[in-house]
Amino acid sequence: MLTGIRHGGDIYSRDIFLDFSVNVNPLGPPESVKEAVRQAAEYCGLYPDIQCRRLRAALAAHYQIDEEMIVCANGAADLIYQLIFALQPHYALLPAPTFSEYRQALNAFGCRVFSVPFTREEGFAIDVMKLIREAKKRIEQKTPPEILFLCNPNNPTGFVIGRKAMEVLAAFAEEEGIWLVVDECFMDFLEEENREEENKNSPFPENSLLPLLCRFPHMIIVKAFTKIYGMAGLRLGYGLSAAPRFMQNISSVRQPWSVSVPAQMAGIAALRESDYLLKTKTIVREGREQLCKGLSRLGFLVYPSRANYLFFRDLREGAEEGMLYQHCLKEKLLLRSCADFEGLDKSYYRVGIKTKKENDCLLRVLADA
Amino acid sequence: MLTGIRHGGDIYSRDIFLDFSVNVNPLGPPESVKEAVRQAAEYCGLYPDIQCRRLRAALAAHYQIDEEMIVCANGAADLIYQLIFALQPHYALLPAPTFSEYRQALNAFGCRVFSVPFTREEGFAIDVMKLIREAKKRIEQKTPPEILFLCNPNNPTGFVIGRKAMEVLAAFAEEEGIWLVVDECFMDFLEEENREEENKNSPFPENSLLPLLCRFPHMIIVKAFTKIYGMAGLRLGYGLSAAPRFMQNISSVRQPWSVSVPAQMAGIAALRESDYLLKTKTIVREGREQLCKGLSRLGFLVYPSRANYLFFRDLREGAEEGMLYQHCLKEKLLLRSCADFEGLDKSYYRVGIKTKKENDCLLRVLADA
Repeated sequence: MLTGIRHGGDIYSRDIFLDFSVNVNPLGPPESVKEAVRQAAEYCGLYPDIQCRRLRAALAAHYQIDEEMIVCANGAADLIYQLIFALQPHYALLPAPTFSEYRQALNAFGCRVFSVPFTREEGFAIDVMKLIREAKKRIEQKTPPEILFLCNPNNPTGFVIGRKAMEVLAAFAEEEGIWLVVDECFMDFLEEENREEENKNSPFPENSLLPLLCRFPHMIIVKAFTKIYGMAGLRLGYGLSAAPRFMQNISSVRQPWSVSVPAQMAGIAALRESDYLLKTKTIVREGREQLCKGLSRLGFLVYPSRANYLFFRDLREGAEEGMLYQHCLKEKLLLRSCADFEGLDKSYYRVGIKTKKENDCLLRVLADA
Repeated sequence: MLTGIRHGGDIYSRDIFLDFSVNVNPLGPPESVKEAVRQAAEYCGLYPDIQCRRLRAALAAHYQIDEEMIVCANGAADLIYQLIFALQPHYALLPAPTFSEYRQALNAFGCRVFSVPFTREEGFAIDVMKLIREAKKRIEQKTPPEILFLCNPNNPTGFVIGRKAMEVLAAFAEEEGIWLVVDECFMDFLEEENREEENKNSPFPENSLLPLLCRFPHMIIVKAFTKIYGMAGLRLGYGLSAAPRFMQNISSVRQPWSVSVPAQMAGIAALRESDYLLKTKTIVREGREQLCKGLSRLGFLVYPSRANYLFFRDLREGAEEGMLYQHCLKEKLLLRSCADFEGLDKSYYRVGIKTKKENDCLLRVLADA
């Protein structure tokens, strides 16, 4: 039954009532985004702006960076493929488990991937020093990694690498000329915890490397509207980098009209939202507490995710068969089985945090499993 | 001024009143397509169907072919890049002039391109026998082309290669194992001229190779909703092929969520249109006659395009400087200068056929040039 299910969100081949396999904003897209799509109907006869000028200007203002450092794409996944194509790496370093699309894309381009496993015994916590040691080892062995992907917070675990640790890693990558791709697609869901005094007034999430973009020109930050604005159907992602050569390369290896008119218009509308983001953080925090408690009470091992999804393990007998997944499916609830993540198996699951009522429903169904 | 203008439709960096540089349906998208986009607003929070099941089912019914022979993409340009990536050709054959994105995409993947020029003296008419001779020559020279792109009708000339000639070429390509990519994005604009008796009741345009898909598994037909349904802003193209291996390959080298929810919904709506297509053919035929006469009267050399755009040459003194382009720009009319097409120069132009009133406006402005 799990064959071919590489991703969450495939609600088209099944009869699903609640889809917990996706990890997008539980509020759904803001009304302004829907309205932008409706308005886009009038402009859908026009070719989209190849340069995404208005959208990039809005992003530049939002992040207080130069427009030239922004490239938009048909979703973050599109960008991941394109950046690999632009950089043509021969060897890559990837922590495991992590978002499987990095490896998928690297393999498509014939790049050899070295995995750095973070195990159950380590609580799947990513240790950047281990990544650095691994990179050094590969350099010594004359198979130097030219690119390193990190998802922060990590997918599916929700584990966050702190800013200081990321800085150490970015400095190492810069020194060695390794492209460091930091996927911060879920960063905006995080609550502030230990914001440093010096960054107190920064408009960026406390663990984001965005403020350090110019210091590390080998760093590429991947972002998406998909998750935080709940607009997965529109396909809109973007990359941030202070490397002009990378920006030129990526433009020369892709079709010019990547980003549709509705996506560009919706992106501009989304960036005007602020209450929506506050409301999102509240509902995600409350939902996280609710599900964390509820899942633990049911006997599942819940990992300490800080993101808008929870990662847990079914420790009961026979769990390796993915019974929980099947049970939920019968009740028209879709979980994200983590069986296809490297280092995980069918006893691991990821659920997106939803509204209180929806989370309740999940807990009720799981209680009967 | 022409620097960086590789394509039509860039109305975002200029103040344009009428854009003749695009060659999309002069009627604009049908109301049903706009309505589908408006309705898509309610679904834009959902991930799009990776498989585009409903859209592919609609296309399969439309063409009376197997769904497995259809792959959808983020516009035809997206498909062109992906199919090259999937096939990994080392040598390619391209007629010149033709749509520049083929070469652009082939170059991006490091494929060496052999041009087969069709010159002014030949009226830019594509002779398939010349293409075959050229392919044979390259095979003898141990640089066998593995892929051949043909745009039929050709862009920017509007020249149509007849069905019989295309069959000869397809048979040759099949025999030699050369991938023949036939871009039929403009085919639906053509009027029937000499439909053969045996194909009298076929639902396909008379010169389309679509009915021969299964006979030539090395053939890939590229189509788009962009042009014929005037929905350039939504990005929706598709490929048709009877080669299962190609279909598997192309899925494994691209991101899963290429086609947005609005594009999938709009595509399904568009396929229900029939009066719109009849109306399109009428307006294009009338506009073609109007512009053909008008441009000829003004002293331009008009080539016999059968498509929804006209290709002409400014024969006046100093035309090589692209004066006509500049003159129109001053009047906020955008022409497609063909200076960046191989074998052409700044005295060649392409204009999309528009409504009577708009065409009149173009002729008036050109009369003052």
